[in-house]
Amino acid sequence: MISRREMLQTGIAAGSITLIGDRISPVNAQKMAGGAITDVAGIKVGHFTDNRRPTGCTVVLAEEGAVAGVDVRGAAPGTRETDLLDPINLVQQVHAIVLAGGSAYGLDSAGGVMKYLEERRIGFKTDDAIVPIVPAAILYDLSVGDPRIRPDAEAGYKAAKAASTKAPAEGNIGAGSGATVGKLLGMKRAMKGGIGTASIRLEDRQRNSSLTVGALVAVNAVGDVIDPATGKILAGARSADGKSIQGAMNAIMSGEPLPTLLGGSATTIGVIATDARLDKAQARKIAQMAHDGLARTINPIHTAYDGDTIFALSTGKSSWPANVTLIGALAAEALSLAVIRAIQMARGMAGLPAASDFK
Amino acid sequence: MISRREMLQTGIAAGSITLIGDRISPVNAQKMAGGAITDVAGIKVGHFTDNRRPTGCTVVLAEEGAVAGVDVRGAAPGTRETDLLDPINLVQQVHAIVLAGGSAYGLDSAGGVMKYLEERRIGFKTDDAIVPIVPAAILYDLSVGDPRIRPDAEAGYKAAKAASTKAPAEGNIGAGSGATVGKLLGMKRAMKGGIGTASIRLEDRQRNSSLTVGALVAVNAVGDVIDPATGKILAGARSADGKSIQGAMNAIMSGEPLPTLLGGSATTIGVIATDARLDKAQARKIAQMAHDGLARTINPIHTAYDGDTIFALSTGKSSWPANVTLIGALAAEALSLAVIRAIQMARGMAGLPAASDFK
Repeated sequence: MISRREMLQTGIAAGSITLIGDRISPVNAQKMAGGAITDVAGIKVGHFTDNRRPTGCTVVLAEEGAVAGVDVRGAAPGTRETDLLDPINLVQQVHAIVLAGGSAYGLDSAGGVMKYLEERRIGFKTDDAIVPIVPAAILYDLSVGDPRIRPDAEAGYKAAKAASTKAPAEGNIGAGSGATVGKLLGMKRAMKGGIGTASIRLEDRQRNSSLTVGALVAVNAVGDVIDPATGKILAGARSADGKSIQGAMNAIMSGEPLPTLLGGSATTIGVIATDARLDKAQARKIAQMAHDGLARTINPIHTAYDGDTIFALSTGKSSWPANVTLIGALAAEALSLAVIRAIQMARGMAGLPAASDFK
Repeated sequence: MISRREMLQTGIAAGSITLIGDRISPVNAQKMAGGAITDVAGIKVGHFTDNRRPTGCTVVLAEEGAVAGVDVRGAAPGTRETDLLDPINLVQQVHAIVLAGGSAYGLDSAGGVMKYLEERRIGFKTDDAIVPIVPAAILYDLSVGDPRIRPDAEAGYKAAKAASTKAPAEGNIGAGSGATVGKLLGMKRAMKGGIGTASIRLEDRQRNSSLTVGALVAVNAVGDVIDPATGKILAGARSADGKSIQGAMNAIMSGEPLPTLLGGSATTIGVIATDARLDKAQARKIAQMAHDGLARTINPIHTAYDGDTIFALSTGKSSWPANVTLIGALAAEALSLAVIRAIQMARGMAGLPAASDFK
């Protein structure tokens, strides 16, 4: 018996899994290492990083429009344009999603993305104007560097301008610049988080069709990041001397008192994209199931201090029949892979070591 | 470094974890093996099993009333009295929760529990009568045995009458009687599910207070059940010859076509109980975070064919300060432990082997 985890470990090592017909097809390592949300046709990604802190923002562009859904499961969210994603509401397509640092101030970055899209005449057409639809979610990174520096409209504009179909850089960049994890015992015992991406593709040569599900996530959690294949904590709350990774749940279980955290001290935000054709309700269900990928890799998650928010985008460019259970399961797996990539690619800063420093 | 999983494995082996002050206190094995939702003061559990199929129902009684919340995350739910649990609504306390087999028909079992409570004059007092508040959720088990047999009001009454503060029996009993898992490749390749329970207790001798979080869950999932400590599939979709556990995600990843499943073919339902004092909104948040325990142990979960629903009850008998993040994290862990207990205690039936048959 091959354990599911062993199977996925292959995928983690490789970055993406490509399946052809009834069999896994080995694809070349270079392509697999590039497994990214930009493998989904119709998706571009751009980062802006403000190295003064650092903080930043990341834009996922869907210039031809994408059906979208969202699921907000953390208790301290900061969001913009999420209400219109309710399936009962009018607008059917969005043109970009913004993930940003800077706490609620970072929501301004979406304005810059709107400006970028308006200039290119991309958006929802009213009788009077073009209104680009740009939902956004922020994470709290104001404890890293000067908190007066936050991603603004200009930052959003620059991120949109930088967007391409290339696999986006990972780690301390864009919305992951100031991201941290393992904060349940306080920032002094935290570690560096970051941003990561991954994709999974199913191919059916007989029907000449494929289905791709990609994920992009900025990991900035109260909790620890765990490899579900082994149960090992990759990054999380450190011991009091800072020299080893103790783990938040271990601390709880050993009766260590928890410091009082302020709301908004964390938040993991991400985007699922697929080329499958989904309606708004289906996209929302995919966003919901994707959160299970956070639960498998981050513990605790969805806490009182996390505003965890996941968007799902459907570009509709695949003829693969939409199966919400299949796509949702793949979305959760892709998001798990992306969380682990974010932590693997993060690099340590002063006072904030990364997983790569504990090897 | 002790991995969180190793720590919890100790808990899984033992059944519950008791923590005193700043240190884990070894408690006697007998008590730990009995870790159950009934360790929460103010909670009783009773089962009714109809061996003709089998099917059944399980009642969690809170005769002195409990603040409650619910989170419905599956796409095919069957529920009763869940709307009143919205924090904006009037009723503040419930008197029982019912988990039942029989698909939507099984919701009638709550009527029998209401009768039992009315006879004992337990309920919400109006000017005219006493109305017991008994939210309920059902699971789909009509593919096991004669589908015309379902838990009814009499079944609910009997389960309530059988309720006690003793640790409830686990496996093929009550709402877990007809539960199955690993159905993504069809019922012929499924395995037996069941019902399980677990608890976690934190103790602070200096303040002479303790906090207990218990979980009870009937595991009846489309997906496989995985031990998060090892990534190993404990029960799930079997290979075509039925002789080994293949796993749903492995099947998806190897391009195996999925059979068309009807909505309502599964559903995992459970109850979290704590003696911490919570308000309705906090109880709802605990129910939400508890779902992460399902995500860690079941894959896929929250699918189009699962109506996964978790209730949270607060009896308020502990003076431990309510910390939603702490209690929610413990709720997810307790629910993970309970899922694994359900699978470990399940026993095989004709055509439906259990995890214990694959040792």
